[in-house]
Amino acid sequence: MKSRCPNIKYLFEPRSIAIIGASQDTMKLGYTIIENILSGNYIGKVYPVNPKGGEILGHSVYKSVEEIDDIVDIACIAIPAKIVFKAVKSCAHKGVKFLVIITSGFSEIGNTAEERKIASYAREHGMRILGPNIVGIYSSSVSLNATFGPKEIETGNVAIITQSGAIGIAMIGKTKVEHIGISAIVSVGNKADIDEADLLEYLISHKETKIILLYIEGIRGGEKLARILKMATKKKPVIVIKSGRSKRGAIAAASHTGSLAGADKVFDAIIRQCGVIRAENIQEALEWCKFLVNSPVPKGENSVIITNGGGIGVLGADACEKYNVNLYDDIQTLKKTFSEVTPTFGSIRNPVDLTGQASLVDYDKALGAALKNRNIHSVICLGCETTFFNAEAFKGIVKKQYDDYKIKKPIVFSIFGGDKVESCIINLREYNIPIFSDTYKAVSCLSALYSHYRNKISPTDIIKEIDTDIHSIERIIKQARKDNRYFLLSYEAQDIMKAVGIPIPKSYVAHNISEAIKYAEEIGYPVVMKVVSKDIVHKSDVEGVALDLENKAEVIDAYEAILYNCRTNKPNALIQGMEVSEMMQSGIETIVGARRDPSFGPIVMFGLGGIYVEVMKDIVFRSFPVGPKETMKMISELQSYPLLLGVRGEKKKDIDVVVDTVIKVGAILQKCKDISDIEVNPLVVYNCGEGVKALDVRILLSKPEEV
Amino acid sequence: MKSRCPNIKYLFEPRSIAIIGASQDTMKLGYTIIENILSGNYIGKVYPVNPKGGEILGHSVYKSVEEIDDIVDIACIAIPAKIVFKAVKSCAHKGVKFLVIITSGFSEIGNTAEERKIASYAREHGMRILGPNIVGIYSSSVSLNATFGPKEIETGNVAIITQSGAIGIAMIGKTKVEHIGISAIVSVGNKADIDEADLLEYLISHKETKIILLYIEGIRGGEKLARILKMATKKKPVIVIKSGRSKRGAIAAASHTGSLAGADKVFDAIIRQCGVIRAENIQEALEWCKFLVNSPVPKGENSVIITNGGGIGVLGADACEKYNVNLYDDIQTLKKTFSEVTPTFGSIRNPVDLTGQASLVDYDKALGAALKNRNIHSVICLGCETTFFNAEAFKGIVKKQYDDYKIKKPIVFSIFGGDKVESCIINLREYNIPIFSDTYKAVSCLSALYSHYRNKISPTDIIKEIDTDIHSIERIIKQARKDNRYFLLSYEAQDIMKAVGIPIPKSYVAHNISEAIKYAEEIGYPVVMKVVSKDIVHKSDVEGVALDLENKAEVIDAYEAILYNCRTNKPNALIQGMEVSEMMQSGIETIVGARRDPSFGPIVMFGLGGIYVEVMKDIVFRSFPVGPKETMKMISELQSYPLLLGVRGEKKKDIDVVVDTVIKVGAILQKCKDISDIEVNPLVVYNCGEGVKALDVRILLSKPEEV
Repeated sequence: MKSRCPNIKYLFEPRSIAIIGASQDTMKLGYTIIENILSGNYIGKVYPVNPKGGEILGHSVYKSVEEIDDIVDIACIAIPAKIVFKAVKSCAHKGVKFLVIITSGFSEIGNTAEERKIASYAREHGMRILGPNIVGIYSSSVSLNATFGPKEIETGNVAIITQSGAIGIAMIGKTKVEHIGISAIVSVGNKADIDEADLLEYLISHKETKIILLYIEGIRGGEKLARILKMATKKKPVIVIKSGRSKRGAIAAASHTGSLAGADKVFDAIIRQCGVIRAENIQEALEWCKFLVNSPVPKGENSVIITNGGGIGVLGADACEKYNVNLYDDIQTLKKTFSEVTPTFGSIRNPVDLTGQASLVDYDKALGAALKNRNIHSVICLGCETTFFNAEAFKGIVKKQYDDYKIKKPIVFSIFGGDKVESCIINLREYNIPIFSDTYKAVSCLSALYSHYRNKISPTDIIKEIDTDIHSIERIIKQARKDNRYFLLSYEAQDIMKAVGIPIPKSYVAHNISEAIKYAEEIGYPVVMKVVSKDIVHKSDVEGVALDLENKAEVIDAYEAILYNCRTNKPNALIQGMEVSEMMQSGIETIVGARRDPSFGPIVMFGLGGIYVEVMKDIVFRSFPVGPKETMKMISELQSYPLLLGVRGEKKKDIDVVVDTVIKVGAILQKCKDISDIEVNPLVVYNCGEGVKALDVRILLSKPEEV
Repeated sequence: MKSRCPNIKYLFEPRSIAIIGASQDTMKLGYTIIENILSGNYIGKVYPVNPKGGEILGHSVYKSVEEIDDIVDIACIAIPAKIVFKAVKSCAHKGVKFLVIITSGFSEIGNTAEERKIASYAREHGMRILGPNIVGIYSSSVSLNATFGPKEIETGNVAIITQSGAIGIAMIGKTKVEHIGISAIVSVGNKADIDEADLLEYLISHKETKIILLYIEGIRGGEKLARILKMATKKKPVIVIKSGRSKRGAIAAASHTGSLAGADKVFDAIIRQCGVIRAENIQEALEWCKFLVNSPVPKGENSVIITNGGGIGVLGADACEKYNVNLYDDIQTLKKTFSEVTPTFGSIRNPVDLTGQASLVDYDKALGAALKNRNIHSVICLGCETTFFNAEAFKGIVKKQYDDYKIKKPIVFSIFGGDKVESCIINLREYNIPIFSDTYKAVSCLSALYSHYRNKISPTDIIKEIDTDIHSIERIIKQARKDNRYFLLSYEAQDIMKAVGIPIPKSYVAHNISEAIKYAEEIGYPVVMKVVSKDIVHKSDVEGVALDLENKAEVIDAYEAILYNCRTNKPNALIQGMEVSEMMQSGIETIVGARRDPSFGPIVMFGLGGIYVEVMKDIVFRSFPVGPKETMKMISELQSYPLLLGVRGEKKKDIDVVVDTVIKVGAILQKCKDISDIEVNPLVVYNCGEGVKALDVRILLSKPEEV
């Protein structure tokens, strides 16, 4: 029996909750959870469940969930792992919608079978599971704190989804200290059923949530996650912390393309493609959340630094370059705006330097002028404690200006000095004013906001359908499957290129010398000849390749030499023919690839041929599907990109066709579930207008366990 | 009259100080300085000087410095710029040793002439100048606070040298807040005379100083600075903040090599070569100072993370990789050390995970085990606030373990959570225990300590003298100077290579066809032919080069063609002959360069030829002189370095000879002050044992204003 999925709204706004494993023992999670729910003033009904019955905190205990004479939207399960399945069955009987399984001891310690059994049972009975191995869920909409974490949670507009329960608990505490208000905290743990994507889908239109923070350790079903992240980030900022950036933490990627890059590089490329803002660590993420939730989105890229010290100003400019915040440099406007408010020895250039003699009146005027000016879209106000700097008076100015402009224009402050400055910072932060001792931190917050701004205004890329001769492709794959091959032969791979319109060298398979000569003459000399054999993957290794054949005599010689070499070097190989192809003009050699990432599904990759990818690790990735704009952006991120633009007087290369080819290669992989890996190496790129040619194509099919 | 320089000891330990411009007006610097000196309990004599006479804070005022009936080690000058010179003359008369010129309004606003006049007058009269345009000097040895900054300075072991007065003042405040004790603060301002190098030289053996912090905006005389930094960092950690990392801040470097890299890349390479630890910003630098001043140097690289949460542990491991802290992975030792103290579901692998259920007894045991073990050289103790985490009890454990081991082994702590955790951090920091909310910060501190450790244990590189035929070189340069040339002709540059023993292709200059044929036959075919003309710098541009000439006929043709081309493309050029040289075997093309950096003097650079340097910006620098070990390290820092090791089955290249060549090229530049630029491009590198050849060498001579 397969039932309809319950609406995820009832996970965030349950009308009632049953706590299976409710306990009177204050040392048990089953007590803490009920206590948190009750002291948090949950607006729905609370039903403690425990076979022992009795009463807990004034609520009578049901012996079983089935005894409850009411609908039960959530059953929160906090009982030993070995009896969870039994409880889940009762819940199915009762018609519970969501199972919040706190209990640990499942797949995280290798007990995967039990977890799968529970998950598939729940699915069959129309229930969804959060967890297991979680700290619970908090939802401000109904004032529900169904966690065993801290009792007090500050209500606000940041939703947190965390894979680690421990970090979830610690974040509840830290957000309270930092006055970061929370709309929801969901611990996803082992993700037996509900994952980040399911939750994000709901949070996109969740009114209480203005910002979403994800703490991720590992990704499953990343294809769906990427799709939903793209939608979410257009509506609200999504900030991600992913642990395991380092080699020590990252899973060794199995395939060739993966091993070139390391899993984190792929993750990083894809979440940026999705418009996600990635924080390096939890502190940074929380600072960003706090700033973004309180700040308006800027109306443009023109940022201005106001400072009372050259040194601090330059440090601020350094930080802006590091974090990609654009300093406005229209001298005319800067002059008009600041010349009246800047002392003689100051500078109206950006950073606007009021000098160490700056009085607070100067600060007030300059800050006011910057905030008022429509050409200035954000302001970085810096201060260094000098003999003239009065932190107490500065506080007043900051408060006034911030209050006047906080909903109109992003502003960050950073002041540096002794105890008066420090207490000024502490005091202003109590009012949620973004002021920091560290200039770099201030600029980093603004930079996160600009990441969101840029993603929000960037036009949605058009994903176009690629014309594909899918029947030819299927025929080729069918043949390979029949032969029990997990790779395609060279000519088969070429036929697949033809099926999506990627140009390949003219090429025929000859079965004897006279055919070889005929084809060579049809193609035109010089030609290249390669052995065709399902038993020979690396043709060069067996000397099965001959280049630059200029006439009939050379074709004959080469044909015989290749046959001889293959018979000598690989005696048992079945020779199926000899591929004769046109000898290519030289151009820039590139590599285009596509594969199924274990986390993210179809991804495409691009790099310049040879040592650029191998030695310099100069390679870029995107999840597929991807539109032409984003593909162009991806290509331009290569360090070696100038080579495609033409260096040393060379002409610009045909980059548009490269973009097209990358998308086509991705489309093949996406459409044919049988294909696991495509590598065009080299894809030779010619001058603008002259296109590309796929010289060598390697296509692997998925092994049975991967399909 | 040129007098002997006074011993800089008297700047840090003056027996007496005169304040020229002492004032009763509490709004004036001349008052603040005296007040700071007196309230700071300076142990020497204080002599206020002001033509008005009278009394200030109980001290009678001298009308002129000459009236003082005592030696005067320091005269602190705080009077308007236009009358400073007059005061300096009086000081000379009096025999003052050091002038601490607070006054601004000199070279920083373009008034360079006055500053130079004062500086040269002082030099001639045996006085040294600190400043002008500074906040003053603080020296804990004699309890002297001769600054107009904050009155209260915490005494300790960090010496600060700052180019910015404003940042100096703010740092005094901030160090007090952070309990960072100061041994000296010296503001160097415009550096008319005394610079960072002079001060460092003294601070190397300054007992009170354990760590030196430099805030730098621009470098002059970097050659001397580099030399002294190398000595200083062997004794004590030197931490540098340099503002102007970004393009916007950095001075556009004039020469080719510089423009490839940007000035900051050169600065960064050189200070790392000198063993300096570079901080990105002031906060980071101060955190490092505080940690390093309180921590012992580790005895080895084995670091262990102890944690109660998988997530925080992985974040810690990520931070260790980012900051290059080595996680110990001897499983046997880890098992032996931690298996007894780690719960069943925990992990004895590093990070050692005590799990969320970890009790404080577990923490105590694990921490103790790690600190006791001699194979473990440093400990990173992390904590995440779980239901079982008692911050108050944790505090006790941290205090006890830290007290027991703080002088034996470096330890850092990081805990993350709510208000109890936060107040635990604040409380422990009061005891100077290195505990942070941010795991990355904790690891970054340990990383700074490891930078110091690695520099300290690295054996001093042997700078060997290069055998140079200096007479030949001088003869060549003399000829070029006679011709009014600022570049050497190709054969001259080759002769310079010969003078230090860098191999060049066999090559002769022919003056007619028959000579060309004779030389070609002596060298052996194939040969290369190039025009020789002082009027033609870029030979290819005028088609003055012919490659791969295989026989006599081709030599004749090429000779005539080159002559024709040059006469057509550059009619007025004087053709001085035709260079005939051996045609080289292909190898890996590299670039070796040396130039005089405007800040750092002689520097050498190395990169792989062609687009590696131009497009990929893959280039490395060192200041010269440099020993073979450091040169090897420099080369191995190239991203393209694997190409020299041999990729795709190629043999390893002759890296030792490359090292040798880089040092020789540097030595030429260092020895010949006339040479401003050397670029060997390409230096072709062959397989191990087969050496290198300098195919093309470009040598520029300094213009008169540069000599």
